[in-house]
Amino acid sequence: MPANVKALFFDVFGTLVDWRTSIAREAEVLLKPLGYSIDWIAFADAWRGEYQAGMEEVRSGRIPFSKLDVLHRHNLDRIRPRFGLDRLDEKAVTELNLAWHRLDAWRDVTPGLVRLRKKFWLAPVSNGNISLGVDLARRNGFPWDAILGAEVAGDYKPKPRVYLASADAFGLAPAQCMMVAAHSKDLSAAAACGLRTGHIARPDEYGPGTGESAPKVPVDVAALSLEDLAAKLGV
Amino acid sequence: MPANVKALFFDVFGTLVDWRTSIAREAEVLLKPLGYSIDWIAFADAWRGEYQAGMEEVRSGRIPFSKLDVLHRHNLDRIRPRFGLDRLDEKAVTELNLAWHRLDAWRDVTPGLVRLRKKFWLAPVSNGNISLGVDLARRNGFPWDAILGAEVAGDYKPKPRVYLASADAFGLAPAQCMMVAAHSKDLSAAAACGLRTGHIARPDEYGPGTGESAPKVPVDVAALSLEDLAAKLGV
Repeated sequence: MPANVKALFFDVFGTLVDWRTSIAREAEVLLKPLGYSIDWIAFADAWRGEYQAGMEEVRSGRIPFSKLDVLHRHNLDRIRPRFGLDRLDEKAVTELNLAWHRLDAWRDVTPGLVRLRKKFWLAPVSNGNISLGVDLARRNGFPWDAILGAEVAGDYKPKPRVYLASADAFGLAPAQCMMVAAHSKDLSAAAACGLRTGHIARPDEYGPGTGESAPKVPVDVAALSLEDLAAKLGV
Repeated sequence: MPANVKALFFDVFGTLVDWRTSIAREAEVLLKPLGYSIDWIAFADAWRGEYQAGMEEVRSGRIPFSKLDVLHRHNLDRIRPRFGLDRLDEKAVTELNLAWHRLDAWRDVTPGLVRLRKKFWLAPVSNGNISLGVDLARRNGFPWDAILGAEVAGDYKPKPRVYLASADAFGLAPAQCMMVAAHSKDLSAAAACGLRTGHIARPDEYGPGTGESAPKVPVDVAALSLEDLAAKLGV
């Protein structure tokens, strides 16, 4: 267990919340009463499928920083034709876009965070924007000390600036912070910035058996859940 | 009572915490064992006396944005000779500078915030930096949804950018946010940006009878405490 860690930074989508079944459910709740019947899980996957390309526009400098809510809307507009949703009115599209603010946490997350908060400062270091982070926190009871991440840094993970700006916001050296994620790419980018790393197994992120059940890169701690992480960090 | 307000933004020093007696106490706790005996309240007042001039360097653009911890240290170094503290070692000065992270709330604040949080999103919009905000929140039990303010905006109140960036971080229009402060200058600057305003009476901020017991400018709500504010906002 790495000594001297003062803060834990959390990836959110996939690591803390089950975006896939939540987006499928929210889309169905909103669109079914309007007469739509589509493959809701395929819709969730397609929307998420545009995620990296949207952020890459910002990371590459081709467009100025835009909040994830804005990128999600752009991505939604791209996939709507594929699902016959071209003629949804503006009010319904705006509401649908906010589905990302109504995601449910994996079962272990809130009790794990409450336990970890006794020993560490906690913040999301997510690509989600601040208001999205607040909505998820209120919905799921996440006990954050602050909402950090892309919007505070003005760029998207895995750009180094996001990890380094988050450590700086807490007044800590990178080695005093641990990035916690279910994605090895996020962790290797954080490690390259000098942060400690903790991997959480989320084997079902894209459906049963599709996610990382173990890290693909060297990490400081590998855990099966946030409760397991708490135990391994001695809380 | 203004309708449509979704978020409350709080000034911190003076409005939520009693910086004056807290700084005097912290200085005494740290320096008395080192053999110093000075007028602790005068020391707190002198340190705070440098506050606006330090921020004005940033607001005017003469120096790039620096966190309040850095300005506090600079201000401390300016006043140390006046109190015979020139020869304090670096460790003691660093520790003394963190006295601003150990301020106690006025008695009504935490119960008032807990109550207000049922209806509104809550954030400090203070000139204090993020880690200072986290320390004060942990010490006093402030239930923030996010830590906003100068460090997120990259400038100091009363510059418009601080109020506007805070509303934007919550994805809200200025008119959906209410700035709550014990200082009329803060409130008039917020009102000029389109925010709603709530005044809290803190007649004892600089000692009995020295603070604003009522607003000097038009405000949407004037309250005697955060509990009174909650009542007036219908929580």
